[in-house]
Amino acid sequence: MTDETLKYNLPEDRIPKAWYNIVADLPEPLAPVLHPGTGQPVGPDDLAPLFPMALIAQEVSAEREIEIPEPVREVLKLWRPSPLYRARRLEQALDTPAKIYYKYEGVSPSGSHKPNTAVAQAFYNAEEGTKRLSTETGAGQWGSSLAFAGSLFGLPVDVYMVKISYQQKPYRRSLMETYGARCVASPSEETESGRNILAENPDSTGSLGIAISEAVEVAAKNPDTKYALGSVLNHVLLHQSIIGLEAIEQFDMAGDYPDIVVGCAGGGSNLAGLAFPFLGRKLRGGEDVKVLAVEPTACPTLTRGKYAYDFGDTANLTPLVKMYTLGSTFVPEGIHAGGLRYHGMAPLVSHVLDLGLLEARAEPQLDCFAAGVQFARAEGIVPAPESTHAVKEGIDEALKCKEEGVSRTILIGLSGHGHFDMQAYTDYFSGKLEDHAHDQKALRESIALLPHVAAE
Amino acid sequence: MTDETLKYNLPEDRIPKAWYNIVADLPEPLAPVLHPGTGQPVGPDDLAPLFPMALIAQEVSAEREIEIPEPVREVLKLWRPSPLYRARRLEQALDTPAKIYYKYEGVSPSGSHKPNTAVAQAFYNAEEGTKRLSTETGAGQWGSSLAFAGSLFGLPVDVYMVKISYQQKPYRRSLMETYGARCVASPSEETESGRNILAENPDSTGSLGIAISEAVEVAAKNPDTKYALGSVLNHVLLHQSIIGLEAIEQFDMAGDYPDIVVGCAGGGSNLAGLAFPFLGRKLRGGEDVKVLAVEPTACPTLTRGKYAYDFGDTANLTPLVKMYTLGSTFVPEGIHAGGLRYHGMAPLVSHVLDLGLLEARAEPQLDCFAAGVQFARAEGIVPAPESTHAVKEGIDEALKCKEEGVSRTILIGLSGHGHFDMQAYTDYFSGKLEDHAHDQKALRESIALLPHVAAE
Repeated sequence: MTDETLKYNLPEDRIPKAWYNIVADLPEPLAPVLHPGTGQPVGPDDLAPLFPMALIAQEVSAEREIEIPEPVREVLKLWRPSPLYRARRLEQALDTPAKIYYKYEGVSPSGSHKPNTAVAQAFYNAEEGTKRLSTETGAGQWGSSLAFAGSLFGLPVDVYMVKISYQQKPYRRSLMETYGARCVASPSEETESGRNILAENPDSTGSLGIAISEAVEVAAKNPDTKYALGSVLNHVLLHQSIIGLEAIEQFDMAGDYPDIVVGCAGGGSNLAGLAFPFLGRKLRGGEDVKVLAVEPTACPTLTRGKYAYDFGDTANLTPLVKMYTLGSTFVPEGIHAGGLRYHGMAPLVSHVLDLGLLEARAEPQLDCFAAGVQFARAEGIVPAPESTHAVKEGIDEALKCKEEGVSRTILIGLSGHGHFDMQAYTDYFSGKLEDHAHDQKALRESIALLPHVAAE
Repeated sequence: MTDETLKYNLPEDRIPKAWYNIVADLPEPLAPVLHPGTGQPVGPDDLAPLFPMALIAQEVSAEREIEIPEPVREVLKLWRPSPLYRARRLEQALDTPAKIYYKYEGVSPSGSHKPNTAVAQAFYNAEEGTKRLSTETGAGQWGSSLAFAGSLFGLPVDVYMVKISYQQKPYRRSLMETYGARCVASPSEETESGRNILAENPDSTGSLGIAISEAVEVAAKNPDTKYALGSVLNHVLLHQSIIGLEAIEQFDMAGDYPDIVVGCAGGGSNLAGLAFPFLGRKLRGGEDVKVLAVEPTACPTLTRGKYAYDFGDTANLTPLVKMYTLGSTFVPEGIHAGGLRYHGMAPLVSHVLDLGLLEARAEPQLDCFAAGVQFARAEGIVPAPESTHAVKEGIDEALKCKEEGVSRTILIGLSGHGHFDMQAYTDYFSGKLEDHAHDQKALRESIALLPHVAAE
């Protein structure tokens, strides 16, 4: 190996000064968000109990660029700009003519891309006088990121953590508590939503949908408390655009540009954060790019879901959003990529897919772990189970290049490290993991229960 | 907070081109390493079964600078240069006039400083035709680092892991296996040392000393297998000097220079890697600097040990080295900072302490965890239990500045993140942790058993 550049580090003064909003460049507007009671589009007042006005404004903004406040950039400096790597060793292991790069978000304090939006959300809330934040978390990536952000802006955080994860993943809980957050097993006795579930089923191990209901209820009922969501919403995707914006600058440094951008998609913010800035250039007449969204076969929202209005949570407390969805009653198998087990998908990602601007693929978990292990042995970084989905697809594209005898430049979104997920690798090596297809009957039933929305 | 620089990133072409060897600048030479059978100084031939010649040459070198091979620098680029941070938020939380910086080694693939030497050792072994590496590991930091390095140079690695950790810390084991290493619970049936221990005590949960004996025995008996050690030895400290060398350049960028350098000390390589390049400048007539080595009260090698010849392992297979030691039979309490539970100390660190060039302090673990939590809430990074010792002492020095109304510049060595050690924080929060003083009777007995060495 020659002395070539393998890591493209931007200096910290090159952290973008503005987020990128793809809404400005899309040929058609997003479908409106509807009030579940009236079926009418929601206005800022409907959202005010849950979010600070600055975030509501971002949620509906059509401005292409939205300035990143200086205090947010100050905190992002702790780990940003994140590195862009050239995966030369992986290329050699695959013996492919493809050029593989990966943008690595595991350098953040909680080990994933989530703090990019957690910091912004904590900042705006602190600025508008919010006294406490409530949120939900599944495996704990989001909860620990918001706990971290809250600690920096002096905001107490209540995290409703899916009970089964609360019991099985004490390390993530411990991380949240280290950052000073209060972590509550959901369903809990603290909310009506939680009590209703427990009355029906005292042994409920919880779900992300239930935890969202609890966190939303707490914010709705307490004037000083606001709610924070770690994916799905437009403002969350906006905050994550910093990933792709940096990557574009780093490709400039490398004198290269991706033909293919691959990201895993759960709620959609990681994929959008990486890919939308590239898609925006394409939409404005710039370089072409193929965007691949990768999801697990166990939760195939984009590849098997319906593009329809649905609720974001189980108790149906959220507004109705038009998105690809498996139905809010669909419960995917317990795959290790907990961050990819959401029944819906960000409306913006759904819209972009519907417009034909991205391709979606579903991968079974065993293939993804095999790709993750291959990546770890070549590049030294153990990917989070979610990120292995992007790695798997990136490797497949590189092997396709080899087959076809062509070189393409592939950008993989490595959304986080797997240090908190080694149990998943243990299970993989001991043969305990299974591939899960989605349950077709459950999916049919869940889709049949989608709310009827007149506006559609 | 203004738009000031908080993170000093060097470009990757500024990774040092040579390691720094403090031996060249010390006023007195190191005491020789002795053969345990003859009591005579060991020569290269004695060490050849265990180490490649390049490392043996480094072990005895008095050259000030030793070139870092290009392939080693290529791998180090994956995470180096590591960032130097200004801890502005911690300063504000402490309301101190002190300027606090920390050099963060948790950005490496295994989350600690250990890969700095693992990569170099794997490289030299691969270059000299070694077919397999054997090593020991306690909590798993070193084992996973060598597993990572081995995977990049195509070297299979056998890791003898202290049995209690093998059972209680499946995540580290899983990380080693992800990198392709074979992990064996020690004591094992694979070696004579292991079988002897098991014959005496079939329920032995192992110790680092036993695991070293096993790994050394395997290398000694198999011509194609060499042994690798993660701390203590001169060449290991040499490889870690990259930490301090980078920090000096980063202080240049910052227009500042530390008055105090603080590191935790287990085997000594982290402390030496950070501090020796600064000490070297002082020894050559440059800036003064106070170096603080921090160890746990449960294993007070530098503050309560004897400066004497001792073995590095339990089965007394290693050469005799002159070092601060609690005696090779001393078994410290089971504190969470597993990396600081070694009975001895690097001969070079011991020598430097003996020359009066550094100060040693012992801290109880509860105070260290309290400091770690305070650091996490201010700076966002959760320190490894070992690193909390340096954080604790750094905070104390900053508070002393406040008391005295003076500003000093303090550099803390943050040797790793705590993501694999969240159980320790869980125990801390749940009140399960205790402070451990060392067992004075056990220490007296252990010291009494130190080998008699005529040369002393």
